[in-house]
Amino acid sequence: MSRVGIVGIGHTAFGRRSDATVQELAFDAFAEALHDAGLERDAVDASVIAAVPEYHKQRSLAGVVQEYLGLCPKPTWLVEVACASGSAAIRTAWLAIRAGVHDVVAVIGCQKMTELETAEVLALMGRVGEVQWESCFGTTFPAYYAMFARRHMHEFGTRPEHLNGVAVKNHHYGALNPLAMFRKEITAEKAAASDPVASPFHVYDCCANADGAACVILASESRAREMSTRPVWLAGMGCGSDSMSVLRRPHLTGLPSAERAAAEAYAMAGVGPRDIKVADVHDCFTIAEIMAYEDLGFCAKGEGGRFIAERESYIGGRLPVNVDGGLKAKGHPIGATGVSMTYEIAKQLRGDAGERQVPGADVGLTHNVGGIGQYCFVQVLARD
Amino acid sequence: MSRVGIVGIGHTAFGRRSDATVQELAFDAFAEALHDAGLERDAVDASVIAAVPEYHKQRSLAGVVQEYLGLCPKPTWLVEVACASGSAAIRTAWLAIRAGVHDVVAVIGCQKMTELETAEVLALMGRVGEVQWESCFGTTFPAYYAMFARRHMHEFGTRPEHLNGVAVKNHHYGALNPLAMFRKEITAEKAAASDPVASPFHVYDCCANADGAACVILASESRAREMSTRPVWLAGMGCGSDSMSVLRRPHLTGLPSAERAAAEAYAMAGVGPRDIKVADVHDCFTIAEIMAYEDLGFCAKGEGGRFIAERESYIGGRLPVNVDGGLKAKGHPIGATGVSMTYEIAKQLRGDAGERQVPGADVGLTHNVGGIGQYCFVQVLARD
Repeated sequence: MSRVGIVGIGHTAFGRRSDATVQELAFDAFAEALHDAGLERDAVDASVIAAVPEYHKQRSLAGVVQEYLGLCPKPTWLVEVACASGSAAIRTAWLAIRAGVHDVVAVIGCQKMTELETAEVLALMGRVGEVQWESCFGTTFPAYYAMFARRHMHEFGTRPEHLNGVAVKNHHYGALNPLAMFRKEITAEKAAASDPVASPFHVYDCCANADGAACVILASESRAREMSTRPVWLAGMGCGSDSMSVLRRPHLTGLPSAERAAAEAYAMAGVGPRDIKVADVHDCFTIAEIMAYEDLGFCAKGEGGRFIAERESYIGGRLPVNVDGGLKAKGHPIGATGVSMTYEIAKQLRGDAGERQVPGADVGLTHNVGGIGQYCFVQVLARD
Repeated sequence: MSRVGIVGIGHTAFGRRSDATVQELAFDAFAEALHDAGLERDAVDASVIAAVPEYHKQRSLAGVVQEYLGLCPKPTWLVEVACASGSAAIRTAWLAIRAGVHDVVAVIGCQKMTELETAEVLALMGRVGEVQWESCFGTTFPAYYAMFARRHMHEFGTRPEHLNGVAVKNHHYGALNPLAMFRKEITAEKAAASDPVASPFHVYDCCANADGAACVILASESRAREMSTRPVWLAGMGCGSDSMSVLRRPHLTGLPSAERAAAEAYAMAGVGPRDIKVADVHDCFTIAEIMAYEDLGFCAKGEGGRFIAERESYIGGRLPVNVDGGLKAKGHPIGATGVSMTYEIAKQLRGDAGERQVPGADVGLTHNVGGIGQYCFVQVLARD
């Protein structure tokens, strides 16, 4: 079975984008990716749109977005699995190319979250927890992840300083990323003193709702070789799922769906965690990045706090993580996030990440979680 | 490239299903399909959920549905393209199997629309028309399709009696389908005298919001041959898209996306419209079935009115259409409809449709439209 390559990438600035509609954001990312690939629009055989539709006044977003991109009458469809929608969309585009049905597919993750009032966003987000048994008791996303953090602290001695360490690192790299929502360094003291959200979380433990879009254009191996001297390959594609409810999880200190997705992606790519040179992981809350280190095998179970404390996930450390700022500093436009991760790792593998470049990055990884881990998608990316 | 077969089918009763949650509806359809396939649940490698999420209190529906079906920790994703979500989900499952990534995939279309007040449903539906330029002026779905009908009448002499004829036929067959929402014959006089909706439509020109679920289990050719003595093959898979806005359409008397999808599906299957023995088409309004006859090549452009007047789409006519009652009498739970179409045609090709059986049905077709034709998916199904 031939490989699938990334031949074009594009990315808008993330943040409060009151200057642009969701179609316009999608267009900017798509146009950049087309230009990057050196393709004409007509060369795109199909598009996959990643978005959580209900944040927009316009519904059935695939139609309106792909029309705005000028892709009619080509096939299009929207994929939604909460905050992992971007990676799930990349997965279905990868399937389409591997199947030999399409040669070139554009994946566009796009989301506007700031059209709605914050209370409306919170109400919608709560419904991505389990409505029948849990969210009726107040389990918002910060509350779920705060439970994970509390349990991790209890079992492994993880401390608030470790959580703050993740925020400090990701703001450090966000300050270097011109597309990030928050481009400022913070100190551990500032993180610790920020307003409480859900114990042990303060404001700086939580990522922010944002607007934005990202695009990757995928092509079959033969087309990728024709059009690019430096394609990045989707070498391993893993996917796992889990219960919506924390009540039905075996433990609260990691995400079984992530472990499964990682095992599948590593096996497909023929690599292990020690081969990964750079990773983008789903740090919707600081504890989520610490759990990801462990679920992905970057360190042993329970050692995630130490991993950040010892700066192992900084450039120069054992495995640099979220050197684009992560969800934490880059912002989290939920439908765009997974595509943004793939954008960043492709950029790193091409050696185009500028002052954030990880030296020698030849194999990278993305880890994109939906909900509280009811979905997880892991990609291993590699260059020739 | 090897073929993909349908090895199991299941379908709940459609209608006002206040007796069941959306998960329970999905479970009933899935359990029937598993039993039909003679499979254990563990044999299912992945699931694709078709639904329009925003009709449900619970969001990110794929997670909660697949968990309820007992499919964790397998891959799952939700596909949404409005009323064509079911067919788009089947398409991505077909891609996954053709790609060699999964062997057995369950596609579950499920929707509860009656939890919401009618006014809420109408507000959500209006947003599937183009919000920026059109729906703000009152272009609800009946209004859009009424424009199509008026134009068809103007250009081709199509008459209200033709529209009524579609309703009479589909209610005739709905009365024979134990899973249909409306199981009663109607007369043309009754249809003509029913309450006006949007001229020229009366109540009986319009399908009804409904609750329900349908499931098809797909397998690779080798697995399908192992597990079934009578697999039905997805022989041709076509997909087209078009502008959200009627303002940007070349004409209003048919759906260009349907013509494109049909051409692609026929070419892939190596058949033409004369080979089709039975079809399920997207009769969200009576005019939509008449336009489908023409877009699919069942008759010449402008001859759709005559096709129903001469009973060509009845069993015994040239090409029986919607002999399960169609959206019109069966009901239209939007996420489930495309899967329900494939269920019906698979049943016909197996010879299991009882008193609605079309004699000699060896090649069949489904035609599933999203919105006002911004998406269209056409499948050609065939038995050995």
